[in-house]
Amino acid sequence: MTESDPLRDLTTPALILDEARMHRNIARMNARIAALGVALRPHLKTAKSVDVARLQLAGAGGRGTVSTLKEAEVMAAEGVRDLIYAVGVTPQKLARVAQLRAAGCDLTVVLDSLAQACAVIAASREGPCPIPALIEIDSDGHRSGLRPDDPALVAIGRQLHAEGLLRGIMTHAGESYRVVGADALAAFAEQERAAATAAAEALREAGLACGVVSVGSTPTAHAARDLSGVTEVRAGVYVFFDLVMAGLGVCTLDDIALSVLTTVIGHQKDRGWTLVDAGWMALSSDRGTAQQATDQGYGLVCDLDGRPLADLIVISANQEHGIIAPRPGAKTQGPDLPVGARLRILPNHACNTAAQHDAYAVITADGASPMAFWPRFRGW
Amino acid sequence: MTESDPLRDLTTPALILDEARMHRNIARMNARIAALGVALRPHLKTAKSVDVARLQLAGAGGRGTVSTLKEAEVMAAEGVRDLIYAVGVTPQKLARVAQLRAAGCDLTVVLDSLAQACAVIAASREGPCPIPALIEIDSDGHRSGLRPDDPALVAIGRQLHAEGLLRGIMTHAGESYRVVGADALAAFAEQERAAATAAAEALREAGLACGVVSVGSTPTAHAARDLSGVTEVRAGVYVFFDLVMAGLGVCTLDDIALSVLTTVIGHQKDRGWTLVDAGWMALSSDRGTAQQATDQGYGLVCDLDGRPLADLIVISANQEHGIIAPRPGAKTQGPDLPVGARLRILPNHACNTAAQHDAYAVITADGASPMAFWPRFRGW
Repeated sequence: MTESDPLRDLTTPALILDEARMHRNIARMNARIAALGVALRPHLKTAKSVDVARLQLAGAGGRGTVSTLKEAEVMAAEGVRDLIYAVGVTPQKLARVAQLRAAGCDLTVVLDSLAQACAVIAASREGPCPIPALIEIDSDGHRSGLRPDDPALVAIGRQLHAEGLLRGIMTHAGESYRVVGADALAAFAEQERAAATAAAEALREAGLACGVVSVGSTPTAHAARDLSGVTEVRAGVYVFFDLVMAGLGVCTLDDIALSVLTTVIGHQKDRGWTLVDAGWMALSSDRGTAQQATDQGYGLVCDLDGRPLADLIVISANQEHGIIAPRPGAKTQGPDLPVGARLRILPNHACNTAAQHDAYAVITADGASPMAFWPRFRGW
Repeated sequence: MTESDPLRDLTTPALILDEARMHRNIARMNARIAALGVALRPHLKTAKSVDVARLQLAGAGGRGTVSTLKEAEVMAAEGVRDLIYAVGVTPQKLARVAQLRAAGCDLTVVLDSLAQACAVIAASREGPCPIPALIEIDSDGHRSGLRPDDPALVAIGRQLHAEGLLRGIMTHAGESYRVVGADALAAFAEQERAAATAAAEALREAGLACGVVSVGSTPTAHAARDLSGVTEVRAGVYVFFDLVMAGLGVCTLDDIALSVLTTVIGHQKDRGWTLVDAGWMALSSDRGTAQQATDQGYGLVCDLDGRPLADLIVISANQEHGIIAPRPGAKTQGPDLPVGARLRILPNHACNTAAQHDAYAVITADGASPMAFWPRFRGW
């Protein structure tokens, strides 16, 4: 039996997870961060799956990162005891944070303003338990956070420290998604490290504790050459990888563990089109490779065994229709794909494509049949 | 009490449905199609909600359109008895179609190839009941379908007719989403009508019955001035409307019934940014207005009562972060939006944004409190 056999019977479109590739991706990140002498704190938002989280956390000391309180609640119910909620907290969300902490989950919040710090202090005084916080640092102009030399950093740090709520700082170099190649990404990782450690130093010079210095993104985690002064690295998409990461040189196409199974529904032969039953509802509308050297459209087309088919990409996506065609400049038209033929589409952005589905149909690492189905959760 | 009061207590991000606007949109389409003297067959894929479908179908004789068999199964379980599955059918899906038909739902499939017709004929002969089909016509080069003068049309028609399975033809002028203004859209509607009726005539001239002549998209449905020869119109996004439709002139901003409630989580004041807790996970990655005269980014920002705030749009979206800023060239920076403030974001594409959520939080037409929650379903 080949790995493709169970895929012939699934309802399409379906989200396929190659477990062996995922294990390899997890092992690679675990080894890499261990070699750098820091802790790994996997981001659980990519998979939103208890089954995947268990594998990620096993090699990471049980430390996790979440992007929603729903993720925190699901993981806490599974016994995860150490989480960072890595999106700036709102006052309205602090009651749920306190409930999770009161139930035994060491959940840390993130903030970058005095208004948030005051809300956290008030909730800690008035609620069932103290809520510790990390101050977010802006290392690359990507989105939120304070520059390391912003006087507000120490001002906020003092407020939190006085209440015993200051845990440290965190930063996310999201702009690393625009940087290609190992050397450029290593320089970006150093920029992220430098901003984080400068912020930690600014707090310490003011006499404030800064135990946690948390950095990370998948590209910088894989590229970093020295993480002196950093205590932990956060990364998420490394678990599956995707075409955006391959375009940056962080992984190869063979590392991408996620794909969307689809069936051919028709053709427009004079235009060179093959139509399939995976539109944006199954692939997402993410066009993350549009600005890269190789634009993969809405995804790269593979055969049922996961081998890319010449230069076929999904050039257009409606709700339940995808249009497959050779990429501009391709030398061949690709193989004949009759109605009913099945294909696998590699995603631009694993987090986004996975979010369109309720479960992973897993090609298990031990080749067991039938396939495993791992549920995903969602919501906030 | 104002309509915004119940919105202060919801967990954000959340999908908000303004029921009064939706009722107005449904009534407008019902009246318009009745005036044209044809039947309306609402597309249920936009809302994927039993509650919304009930309102759409009540004024449309119980006829519906679906884009997945999951939608057909959910609607059939609710007693809907007349459905078109408007995505080219694959041989693998015919067993589920037959099950639905055997259970009493008159579900019609769509196809545009001899291979599909043969599969439908085989399944009709061997399965529990005949499966009637519409032949899809390509009226504008958008995606699937046969040109009305393609000899394959009559060839396929003959095969189906001989088995008593030919119901007629259908077309969808999807390229109408690129045409702006009432006159241009009316011309496009005429192009759609002309292709559909030409195809029906080609079948009839060959002695084949063509009872159903089904056309439609929301823009052409609202713009059509004459539908002679057409028997029914399909439309979906009219029920909610969105920024893409407003950009085409099909609706105004005041007609858009869907929005995403979000909370301010921070600022980058030197860059003029306000950060909110609605990223692409809540808004979708749809950038459908990117090619329109007014690019709305990832959505247009409104206050809690749904009034647009000057020229504020979501300029960037990560998974759980949205960045709000004035659109390029805006004259004002917009109001002060402190941490914890709540906003509503109008979506580019209602189908896509709604698909990111599990339920509608409904501002009920009668102003009743608490809000109603209408579940959405998904999957295939």
